[in-house]
Amino acid sequence: MIFGSDNQAGASPQVLEALNQAYRGTASSYGSDDYCAAATDALRECFDTDLRAFFVVSGTAANTLALSTMVNPWDGILCHHQAHILLDESSAPALITGGASVLPVPAQQLKITPTDLTRMLARIPNDPPHNIHPAALSISQANECGQVYTAGELTELCAVAHAADMAVHMDGARFANAVVALDCQPADITWKAGVDALCLGATKNGAIAAEAVIFFDEALAENFDYRLKRTGHLVSKGRLFGAQFLAWLRDDHWLDLGATANAAAQELRAGVAATDGIRLAFESQSNESFIILNKRVFAQLLEAGVSLYSWYPDALPEDVPMAEDEMLARLVTSFATQQTEVTEFLDLCRRLTTT
Amino acid sequence: MIFGSDNQAGASPQVLEALNQAYRGTASSYGSDDYCAAATDALRECFDTDLRAFFVVSGTAANTLALSTMVNPWDGILCHHQAHILLDESSAPALITGGASVLPVPAQQLKITPTDLTRMLARIPNDPPHNIHPAALSISQANECGQVYTAGELTELCAVAHAADMAVHMDGARFANAVVALDCQPADITWKAGVDALCLGATKNGAIAAEAVIFFDEALAENFDYRLKRTGHLVSKGRLFGAQFLAWLRDDHWLDLGATANAAAQELRAGVAATDGIRLAFESQSNESFIILNKRVFAQLLEAGVSLYSWYPDALPEDVPMAEDEMLARLVTSFATQQTEVTEFLDLCRRLTTT
Amino acid sequence: MIFGSDNQAGASPQVLEALNQAYRGTASSYGSDDYCAAATDALRECFDTDLRAFFVVSGTAANTLALSTMVNPWDGILCHHQAHILLDESSAPALITGGASVLPVPAQQLKITPTDLTRMLARIPNDPPHNIHPAALSISQANECGQVYTAGELTELCAVAHAADMAVHMDGARFANAVVALDCQPADITWKAGVDALCLGATKNGAIAAEAVIFFDEALAENFDYRLKRTGHLVSKGRLFGAQFLAWLRDDHWLDLGATANAAAQELRAGVAATDGIRLAFESQSNESFIILNKRVFAQLLEAGVSLYSWYPDALPEDVPMAEDEMLARLVTSFATQQTEVTEFLDLCRRLTTT
Amino acid sequence: MIFGSDNQAGASPQVLEALNQAYRGTASSYGSDDYCAAATDALRECFDTDLRAFFVVSGTAANTLALSTMVNPWDGILCHHQAHILLDESSAPALITGGASVLPVPAQQLKITPTDLTRMLARIPNDPPHNIHPAALSISQANECGQVYTAGELTELCAVAHAADMAVHMDGARFANAVVALDCQPADITWKAGVDALCLGATKNGAIAAEAVIFFDEALAENFDYRLKRTGHLVSKGRLFGAQFLAWLRDDHWLDLGATANAAAQELRAGVAATDGIRLAFESQSNESFIILNKRVFAQLLEAGVSLYSWYPDALPEDVPMAEDEMLARLVTSFATQQTEVTEFLDLCRRLTTT
Repeated sequence: MIFGSDNQAGASPQVLEALNQAYRGTASSYGSDDYCAAATDALRECFDTDLRAFFVVSGTAANTLALSTMVNPWDGILCHHQAHILLDESSAPALITGGASVLPVPAQQLKITPTDLTRMLARIPNDPPHNIHPAALSISQANECGQVYTAGELTELCAVAHAADMAVHMDGARFANAVVALDCQPADITWKAGVDALCLGATKNGAIAAEAVIFFDEALAENFDYRLKRTGHLVSKGRLFGAQFLAWLRDDHWLDLGATANAAAQELRAGVAATDGIRLAFESQSNESFIILNKRVFAQLLEAGVSLYSWYPDALPEDVPMAEDEMLARLVTSFATQQTEVTEFLDLCRRLTTT
Repeated sequence: MIFGSDNQAGASPQVLEALNQAYRGTASSYGSDDYCAAATDALRECFDTDLRAFFVVSGTAANTLALSTMVNPWDGILCHHQAHILLDESSAPALITGGASVLPVPAQQLKITPTDLTRMLARIPNDPPHNIHPAALSISQANECGQVYTAGELTELCAVAHAADMAVHMDGARFANAVVALDCQPADITWKAGVDALCLGATKNGAIAAEAVIFFDEALAENFDYRLKRTGHLVSKGRLFGAQFLAWLRDDHWLDLGATANAAAQELRAGVAATDGIRLAFESQSNESFIILNKRVFAQLLEAGVSLYSWYPDALPEDVPMAEDEMLARLVTSFATQQTEVTEFLDLCRRLTTT
Repeated sequence: MIFGSDNQAGASPQVLEALNQAYRGTASSYGSDDYCAAATDALRECFDTDLRAFFVVSGTAANTLALSTMVNPWDGILCHHQAHILLDESSAPALITGGASVLPVPAQQLKITPTDLTRMLARIPNDPPHNIHPAALSISQANECGQVYTAGELTELCAVAHAADMAVHMDGARFANAVVALDCQPADITWKAGVDALCLGATKNGAIAAEAVIFFDEALAENFDYRLKRTGHLVSKGRLFGAQFLAWLRDDHWLDLGATANAAAQELRAGVAATDGIRLAFESQSNESFIILNKRVFAQLLEAGVSLYSWYPDALPEDVPMAEDEMLARLVTSFATQQTEVTEFLDLCRRLTTT
Repeated sequence: MIFGSDNQAGASPQVLEALNQAYRGTASSYGSDDYCAAATDALRECFDTDLRAFFVVSGTAANTLALSTMVNPWDGILCHHQAHILLDESSAPALITGGASVLPVPAQQLKITPTDLTRMLARIPNDPPHNIHPAALSISQANECGQVYTAGELTELCAVAHAADMAVHMDGARFANAVVALDCQPADITWKAGVDALCLGATKNGAIAAEAVIFFDEALAENFDYRLKRTGHLVSKGRLFGAQFLAWLRDDHWLDLGATANAAAQELRAGVAATDGIRLAFESQSNESFIILNKRVFAQLLEAGVSLYSWYPDALPEDVPMAEDEMLARLVTSFATQQTEVTEFLDLCRRLTTT
């Protein structure tokens, strides 16, 4: 019963087979190979627009390198208070941008709203050069609370950001799950809504290690090869990434993988809602689910070999009640989650909470 | 005829098969998986000592992260004037160390000698805090001119460095080729000689993308996980590296791969020496060979589809003559180099130079 | 009527005369002069302990250089949500520390309490190396809301910080005002309470430009000369700072200057409390006072030539009411504030609010 | 007998008096005061052109901040192998530029020639993004070997630099000495010759601490206030710099001060040339002189209380002979050097060398 993270899963057989093929012969190095070129073309088709794409080995590398093109070292990057770039990427944003700060938008709910953003921009100190000036907005899609932003919501948020001369970055570590949940075109929730750069993660959804930094605003791509090189992210046998992305995108394989993960999460949430003693902390639409449960039950689940994480209490909106002996936990499904894992987990919960 | 770089080659079937196996099931993330643990044990056995190991995706990441543990941001790193960290890693050393400078040791020949180092240390400005104070010595083994340092030479160099309170880093992007060339134990040319940290590269010698940062001085490993994380080099499905290294080290597979590359280079050099119109710029012992040839011939080789690089003229020692219409070129063999590539290349050279 | 900032004031005649004397002859350079040595001795006497002192030209330099000795580049620095290092020092903390983050302690009132700090430490994500790990606490004394921490409060705060392995930095840009307000010994509210390093500002209180970085924990002083040099803060004719501090400390001149400023502020606050139409936002004890007034009145004050600043609305505790047409403003007095300025300002307010 | 450095001297009475005046009343803070505005106007007049000027407390701050506007963090800065930015500014260039490297132009003589620069540009590795790409040329005027570049020489150098898309920075820590030595207009050896930014130092020539960063290419000045702030170089009572520069520039006071220093140096060099046992290492034109003397004599001079520094042996051109028991020393005169100091020094040398 693996619900700890979608990066505990293995890789899709198609992706593995693509690697096997790619490394049989020779290829150009440092990203100039045919696989990366073809993967970029596949991304252009997928997003129905011209774009520039670069590939890196981790989401933190993708996010921070992308952001480094959008901000000066003395600028700020705004995001939700539960964003990965704020909480889980150590000091990488500061290092890779040369000193920029990541600042949470005070948001009362699980997503940033245009009102939240507008209010923050109105209140943030603005006496240059003393204060941190926000120059980028980062939106996670699907976000770290399992929520997805609709095309309409994104369009509004991007409009507020652009009006304040901020570029918009999308952390798409779970972008496939968002596209599946929204049943939309990739373009609808990216460049058409105003997103300037997307970090598209394949790793959590069936790849070995493959993240694409996609610039819809191609001016941002200038000098990106220098940025890759100086952070150690220009990989010599770079076909590693191109080969994975090609297989991942082909025939909507990525969406099939995401759909499997989302469906398992949906089933899990339905089961939790029907189980006494545990409950959903809040609804979510992607492959991440958040539950409130008794601390003793959590401990017993771990003991029983379930992989799941307790979660940041600050992720809980203020209006959601939680008792002293309760806690928040996160359950993540993946393309590899088995039907049996879900039912076994729910059975186990039922047994533990009725004891 | 691929002699451009050993990173144009594919991967060894054993390494690929290991990846296939590793990604079939689930595993812990962020380097805490069983594969990385087992690979570290395999490295301990290989180097016949206790050690700490971390894995990254590129040689530049490995080198600069390792060096960042040895120097303060205001210190200097000494190396040969043809070192990869000086010439080919952009500003990564400065970024990853927080500002340290890479300084060439004035060396008249293809390797740094203890005399070179001693002389430089005597002359380098030493009026703190105004000047750059050297705190690390970096030695490439095999080096960028195809040379290998003997255990004795390394012992002497490390002694000079340690006497000056400098730590010693070894760039082992082609370490396998050095071990094969010297027919020695890995321990002899690393920790037994005084090396504090080794960046052991598998990528150029049969892996997809796998570099190990090995600390013989375990104090240097403190906080290394933070360094990985903040540079985007903590990979979520980290078994990628453990799995490759396990297969690469098993049954001396890495040395077999290196031996193939070295043998091809040896044959190439013998052939060049026997060919009128081209000549060896200098002898070398690993899988890199350097030739002097007519500029017209070089152009014709490229046209004929040979992959090879013109090389930095400063790599040529001052006492090696080269005519105006001649140039320096580098030829690199790999585990995948075919016997036929070597003979075809030599035939082609013969034809072109006798025209 | 200058209430904009204490850095709009000139300099004390004693400080100026000391500079005149110091620059008549020759002296050693780069901080090795007799003036800096004597100033350090004067600081030792003043703080009744051994210590290491360094001098810089700005408070931002002092704060960020001091903090850079306490944290790794991947660590966090905690402070009040109105702290100067958080709001008014741009990205200097990130640059000078190599990437550390400044994080506000959620505090409901105008000072951090031990409870605030304890609660934050309990809730902050702690899954290394992914999250930002707090390694320093920064306390401003007097703080940016005009408040002073008592020796007892500081002792408690420092104990919480040290128990969590955090070093304690004190931003003493207005330290003299705090000592005067508390009528205490400098030692009582610094090293005796657990402060590891104090940035003692003379600039705002009668000097031209002179800030001392004082290390009570002398281990932090190691390599500080390198830190000064590499940020351009090692001044060649460094007696500039020693001479100012000598005159400033001599015969408690600094406390006399601070007492003048505090007394003027006290009078100002009493006058505001007695004036209809304006009111104190909250009480304060140092030379900074915060008032709530009608936006129209604020504009008229500016028009009338009063120098004062509107202030960050987030400085206002949540339980202090403020109407839509009102705003927060800050009034700062200095050693140079004239009795007549205070009475003229109060008269003007009375006239404007009764119109 | 103070010949250690021109920063051991005091300050000119006019500069001191200007400070006295400036700090009697109030002024705007953070560089927005009338003194800095007037000083900028005075610089415009002095350089006979429009320009942007900013003021900082040290030459290292000025140089590195100016350079940070010219290069990306992955670029290189070229300079003479004896340049202050290369040898004497620690890692400040790397820190302040975000990672750029300072690279010496292989120059056989005491100044960089266009030929040196052209040759280096032809040989420097140029395979982006792997290598360091030079984006700025830094020229010291007068330079660290006491040499001055003529307007013609500068024009040629700047032309080579601009043709290679490099900006040109001038380190003018001793710019006054150069103008005096060349008997030229400031404009002739700066913007008219192609210099994009000049760091004009007043400190070594009669000020307390005052360095101007002057942008002739005003595009480089964009965001400079952020650069100042984040390095701690935005000084709150910023009139410190404006007041000094105003007095320093008024009625060519700066040139008078420089002329005094140069004349003393000229006399010193003439005296050295006429003294057996010591000799000029090479001719120089500014206030720095370089002599070769017996090591024993050097020690005796120090013992006798002479302030002078032994100098980097690498400053000596290869074709200048120096015996084993000899050494290089630097003698610097200043505006405050007394006639008697020169004659006493020469007398002392005569006595010591004839013993």
